[in-house]
Amino acid sequence: MTFAQSSPSALTVDLYELTMMQAYHLNGVEGLSTFDLFVRRLPAGRDFLLVAGLAIVLERIEELRFSASDLEYLESLGQFRGDFLDRLEHLRFSGDVAAVPEGTVAFAGEPILRVTAPIIEAQFLETVIMNLIHLQTLIASKAARVVLAADGRGLVDFGLRRTHGTESGLYGARASRIAGFDATSNVEAGNRFGIPVAGTMAHSYVQALDDEAEAFRSFVEIYPETVLLVDTYDTMRGVDRVIKLADELGDDFRVRAIRLDSGDLLALAAETREKLDAAGLERVQIFASGNLDEFGVRELVQTGAPIDSFGIGTRLGTSEDAPNLDIVYKLAQLDDRPLLKLSTDKGTLPGIKQVWRERDGDGVPVKDTLGLADEDLPGVPLLKTVMEGGRRLPGWNEGLDTARDRAAAELRRLPAAMRSLETGFDPYPVMVSERLRALRDELASKA
Amino acid sequence: MTFAQSSPSALTVDLYELTMMQAYHLNGVEGLSTFDLFVRRLPAGRDFLLVAGLAIVLERIEELRFSASDLEYLESLGQFRGDFLDRLEHLRFSGDVAAVPEGTVAFAGEPILRVTAPIIEAQFLETVIMNLIHLQTLIASKAARVVLAADGRGLVDFGLRRTHGTESGLYGARASRIAGFDATSNVEAGNRFGIPVAGTMAHSYVQALDDEAEAFRSFVEIYPETVLLVDTYDTMRGVDRVIKLADELGDDFRVRAIRLDSGDLLALAAETREKLDAAGLERVQIFASGNLDEFGVRELVQTGAPIDSFGIGTRLGTSEDAPNLDIVYKLAQLDDRPLLKLSTDKGTLPGIKQVWRERDGDGVPVKDTLGLADEDLPGVPLLKTVMEGGRRLPGWNEGLDTARDRAAAELRRLPAAMRSLETGFDPYPVMVSERLRALRDELASKA
Repeated sequence: MTFAQSSPSALTVDLYELTMMQAYHLNGVEGLSTFDLFVRRLPAGRDFLLVAGLAIVLERIEELRFSASDLEYLESLGQFRGDFLDRLEHLRFSGDVAAVPEGTVAFAGEPILRVTAPIIEAQFLETVIMNLIHLQTLIASKAARVVLAADGRGLVDFGLRRTHGTESGLYGARASRIAGFDATSNVEAGNRFGIPVAGTMAHSYVQALDDEAEAFRSFVEIYPETVLLVDTYDTMRGVDRVIKLADELGDDFRVRAIRLDSGDLLALAAETREKLDAAGLERVQIFASGNLDEFGVRELVQTGAPIDSFGIGTRLGTSEDAPNLDIVYKLAQLDDRPLLKLSTDKGTLPGIKQVWRERDGDGVPVKDTLGLADEDLPGVPLLKTVMEGGRRLPGWNEGLDTARDRAAAELRRLPAAMRSLETGFDPYPVMVSERLRALRDELASKA
Repeated sequence: MTFAQSSPSALTVDLYELTMMQAYHLNGVEGLSTFDLFVRRLPAGRDFLLVAGLAIVLERIEELRFSASDLEYLESLGQFRGDFLDRLEHLRFSGDVAAVPEGTVAFAGEPILRVTAPIIEAQFLETVIMNLIHLQTLIASKAARVVLAADGRGLVDFGLRRTHGTESGLYGARASRIAGFDATSNVEAGNRFGIPVAGTMAHSYVQALDDEAEAFRSFVEIYPETVLLVDTYDTMRGVDRVIKLADELGDDFRVRAIRLDSGDLLALAAETREKLDAAGLERVQIFASGNLDEFGVRELVQTGAPIDSFGIGTRLGTSEDAPNLDIVYKLAQLDDRPLLKLSTDKGTLPGIKQVWRERDGDGVPVKDTLGLADEDLPGVPLLKTVMEGGRRLPGWNEGLDTARDRAAAELRRLPAAMRSLETGFDPYPVMVSERLRALRDELASKA
């Protein structure tokens, strides 16, 4: 492994963006365009999104640059002309970005990011903006459900080994941290984003030592406050060995927790708690992992399993029940011309838009309205200008903790119906303003 | 975007690998270990895996290196000692790897990769080996089903915009190419792996021009053999405009295909084909996309939709129906000591193992047997030694085409029951040799 940060090449783009860009270039289509990024429909069983990924996208936009070898490859394809490749060589993003800040709750159909830039630049960014916001919003939205289910218990991201690639593990750790996770097992995520890292031990350590008791003893000597994994051979015998070690070490025994990783976690946790308490080890906590998602966590919490913290891996890291969002990036305006698309079931709303959110006296959202940006509608606008002229505005270089605090406040004020893991009968109301609706109808009739 | 290849840092690892490594180091656990990588159970609805990812993993293993800043970060965590960090600074992989070659069909429980190395090195590689083989085997296995369903029609990977990160898009393109896809929209995948790149146009291009006819005309001027997207406003009117353009251009009209991206693809393809043929445009093909997976493709193929090629995106790129595999990496031997783990539903088989595959006269696999590597069992061994002493063996630097040819041969010789998209009543027989079973029972009784 080399040390370079994983940063995609400028060629991380669908070919048609480049062929369209050349066509704009050659045909003199040079207008100022506005594209909207939004999720068309929520996945089954979901009733809100937790937006994430903005800071990473802004960083990428600022770094946009084609290398000499990128351009050589494009030339080798035989469909790009010299003057277009020259233009790519100097391509930098010079436009504006408005976005819903990370950690904000959002709904289907609402623009969560809006790019206004010369069309050649805005078109180029489609693939990478979609990809990076999709991943992080997907994982943050799933992680938010786990946070709600855990109801205050500790949560550690264990996803890295089965996420879709290592970049997904890195950004997944970031997204779950925003949603409220306490820590991650991913060391690079700790290094890159300052997320607390956590880890226990694996079965291989227990197997590699002569016996389980020796494995525990030798590990605790090095890491006195560690978490001991007890299910390599027989869970309850493993617990007994931890208790025996506590007896031997007396005051030097400072093990923080026991980890259960297989079997009936409710029954094992109850039995483990009983044994630990009977041995005077009330302060030793129980950590559980193994195929958990928000439903598994909720069941354990609601049945009163004495579990203090959960490790959540694959089912979060791959968003197992809903591994993708129907996210799209659509042209809505070119110069002063609002535009729309009518494709069956895939129509769009024209014009430069804003989303206004109304809240009740407790700050709980009650209604969102999609309108044209120059309207004056009730509520607070969700899309904030975060980048102008290709540069982030001061204040939009926010740290992960800011986004995390925002998410915590959003989840506290979530409408009651959305706090459960099931979707309600009444979806959250997202309205379209009269002016926007009229504009859409007018354009549709002319298409 | 910068130009660095996306290469994960050596910190792309779960923290517990590093804490265990330090414990091995301090406790003198320095034996030669063997770890097996295998998929415990296949996802519901699947009956085989198509193995992929090996070349990428071998590259990473050879490049393994902790940078000064990696080590500084680890030091800052306050749990690693100086002599251990010194050891990490010089850590290189010095061991052996045996693996099932890319493009081979494999089944649950079979080791697809086996690492034999000093335990500190083999333990370190757990996270990254699991992550990279998981992703590519996941996508190759899904793509193989699409290839079977397409029954010879063209296939283009359109996944990048909604894969889990850009690295996943890159390796997903590679995996689907191995499985038999013809091309990808991902330009970086073309650059890195030599995969043919393909792309058409997006709705934004049609919207950005004054009208659809003008959009088609201007695009064809630049790309005479392009594919025209006809559903921005009304699909059949779009087709009419293509036919009109053909009329105008006469012999200069060389458009390769029409692309349908929404609506009832069967009905629209039939109507489009009819119109094109009536206009003497028999050679213009039909390309279809939009939420397709193996089931969608099969339905279109079986109902005789006149579609020549398919673009397959999100449902393949996120392996929507089965977004993860139950892949694990387990310690099986330390020096001369075979080891096992008994955790409920997560037990393992001990010892250094091999998989033998028996085939019938037509080369169709009929039975696999898992045994100890020094046994002499019927069939051909699947695990090949690909790396020794930390270096790839000559011949194991194979190109993508070799893996792709292997996959094509494997899919041609797939047992009939597995050619359908449904799982059969009788799973493929994977047996355990008598000696291996006896060893397991003996160790289990002593644990």
